[in-house]
Amino acid sequence: MRSVAVVGIGKTAFGAFPDRDLRSLAVEAGQKALADANAQTSQVEAFYLGNFAGPSFVGQNHLAPYVAAGMGIVGIPATRFEAACASSGSAFFHAVSAVAAGLYDVVLVGGVEKMTSQTTPKVTEILAGAGDLCGEVRAGATFPALFAMIARRHMYQYGTTREHMAAVAVKNHQNGAKNPLAHMRKVITMEQALNGKPIAEPLTVYDCSLISDGAAAVLIAPLERASEFTSKPVRVLGIAQASDNVALDEKEDITTFRAVKTSAAKAYKMAGVQPSDIQFAEVHDCFTIAEIIAIEDLGFVTKGEGGPYTLAGKTCIQGELPVNTSGGLKSKGHPVGATGVGQICDIAQQLRGEAGERQVTRNKLGLAQNLGGSGATSVISILGAA
Amino acid sequence: MRSVAVVGIGKTAFGAFPDRDLRSLAVEAGQKALADANAQTSQVEAFYLGNFAGPSFVGQNHLAPYVAAGMGIVGIPATRFEAACASSGSAFFHAVSAVAAGLYDVVLVGGVEKMTSQTTPKVTEILAGAGDLCGEVRAGATFPALFAMIARRHMYQYGTTREHMAAVAVKNHQNGAKNPLAHMRKVITMEQALNGKPIAEPLTVYDCSLISDGAAAVLIAPLERASEFTSKPVRVLGIAQASDNVALDEKEDITTFRAVKTSAAKAYKMAGVQPSDIQFAEVHDCFTIAEIIAIEDLGFVTKGEGGPYTLAGKTCIQGELPVNTSGGLKSKGHPVGATGVGQICDIAQQLRGEAGERQVTRNKLGLAQNLGGSGATSVISILGAA
Repeated sequence: MRSVAVVGIGKTAFGAFPDRDLRSLAVEAGQKALADANAQTSQVEAFYLGNFAGPSFVGQNHLAPYVAAGMGIVGIPATRFEAACASSGSAFFHAVSAVAAGLYDVVLVGGVEKMTSQTTPKVTEILAGAGDLCGEVRAGATFPALFAMIARRHMYQYGTTREHMAAVAVKNHQNGAKNPLAHMRKVITMEQALNGKPIAEPLTVYDCSLISDGAAAVLIAPLERASEFTSKPVRVLGIAQASDNVALDEKEDITTFRAVKTSAAKAYKMAGVQPSDIQFAEVHDCFTIAEIIAIEDLGFVTKGEGGPYTLAGKTCIQGELPVNTSGGLKSKGHPVGATGVGQICDIAQQLRGEAGERQVTRNKLGLAQNLGGSGATSVISILGAA
Repeated sequence: MRSVAVVGIGKTAFGAFPDRDLRSLAVEAGQKALADANAQTSQVEAFYLGNFAGPSFVGQNHLAPYVAAGMGIVGIPATRFEAACASSGSAFFHAVSAVAAGLYDVVLVGGVEKMTSQTTPKVTEILAGAGDLCGEVRAGATFPALFAMIARRHMYQYGTTREHMAAVAVKNHQNGAKNPLAHMRKVITMEQALNGKPIAEPLTVYDCSLISDGAAAVLIAPLERASEFTSKPVRVLGIAQASDNVALDEKEDITTFRAVKTSAAKAYKMAGVQPSDIQFAEVHDCFTIAEIIAIEDLGFVTKGEGGPYTLAGKTCIQGELPVNTSGGLKSKGHPVGATGVGQICDIAQQLRGEAGERQVTRNKLGLAQNLGGSGATSVISILGAA
């Protein structure tokens, strides 16, 4: 297998954009990634697009050729990948695997979602489609409810507190406030986070990620060709995707995500690194408890220590392991289908030393974790400066 | 690249199954494919699932891990592919490419759709999501209307008649009547076909494919390992996917599908064969005119000759080039996401000599053509007895 590099990155702002349609967001991100790589559309050999629920949110399906043609790209394989909130992480996984295996050289990978044209109850209903409609969802569970149960169990089992979760929110808002492309650029206090409007006990509005519009894209190529496109290639050192049961009640332990552990183990092995080698990470904080569980499942801390570790400031930009320097899904925003590739852009930005006032000092090895549903899909990518 | 073989096939019946849910259909097809290959679930290294609009038809998203777990398969990459009516053709293309490149050995590829729980107007609306919502669909076009325009232009440009299109319907119903898994096992006469209820002039109800529930699956593996699974492996000789503009009004010529020509040329080249070498085919007759255009675009007949060729009986089971011996989308049914992999099963069945009274005599080389929307995606697969 060949080494693969990210040679161009592009993101739209994440936010609520009533005047923008789904395609224009994806086209903007794609064109930015191509421009960043000094690449022409004619060089693109395949287009992989992550999108969770464009048809449900705005009615548009058959999105990959639709977006590709919007950039003037026709005649190539253009395919949409769906794996719930890990849709574009999955597109990235498949694209990187294809380039590594020699199927293509130059591949454009995008992710997009347009959510804010629907009301919050309707968005919640559409998101619930990532759960088990014949089981947990029929029983009344929404995703905030599912993660509230996960949080309760984690609190019971490991002594995690509401302060621990609030510390995730405070930190991510602090980071997002400095990210010009973030949806909610607002610093919040611990007191605010603890006294937010209840959504699903023990989760308040400050524990939940945002409903956003946005898109992200990366151009990838074999490492040996990276210099044709950029002086700052980012190397994909390890990548893996894994699945698990969809329904929460079918999991043995809801305080850990088995698919995350499986995919992380594979990605670490492929990269030849240990969790302790990772210098910074973007993890899937769809809810604050998910970030706590992520840093545990990824092996950054021992099980149960995710909360105290966060409250102690270790995951801040100046901490020993900066997590979600972008602001995470909590503050940067969570346009579902764009999140996975957006994380890759964020990691690449740090590796390239272009994160401005959010720049981490130890920036040679970063990890992105993209989660689908309540853990039925996980994609782990380990990236390094080439 | 390694040679890839289809080592197991499985299909549900296509039809209207009010008592079956989406997952159970997909699981049934997957289990049948595994059983046909004498394979265990533990041998499956990745799961590729084609589905067009499960979330819109029945609300369920995140389908690939959901279906995989329904078969007891977890811990592997399980991903949904969407490319409108070519969704599972695209899943098959990506899966075959991955095995050819050495990424995996044993991969399960499925396709599923559950459409009949919605009313016909709602189905028509959901299907329209495969068109350009900001253009042609906003202007009032449904897919029958788009293909009616295509038919009108083909009639004007090449002298194609309603009899030519009706001949497609009569032939496909004749074949489907003999297919135990077909949705509408009913022979129709030319007179019936010509006097069907108008849907979108010049198309009548007999020119339109069916709204169906159903699933299909195949197990694939490297050819060198095929004998572990079956004594009748089917070899994938050539395969390609291509894209084009989505909107009809953005195409230069609506009597031909550029993506079909592009992908067919690639697949023929990969297989090292000519159109005249193909002995039988399953083509995407979402409307009768689409079959006429398909046999032209695939190079089986010269442009404009598709209608007369069909009316002359050349594409019947006993004809010189049997087309849609399964009954096609017209009579077998068109559970959108299942159609692409369903075609692969149908071709494999002929290659294995298991098509019963529909068996063709020249059965060494078959082609499947799976079309998305009004031609924005095309997947061509050329299969041969190994």
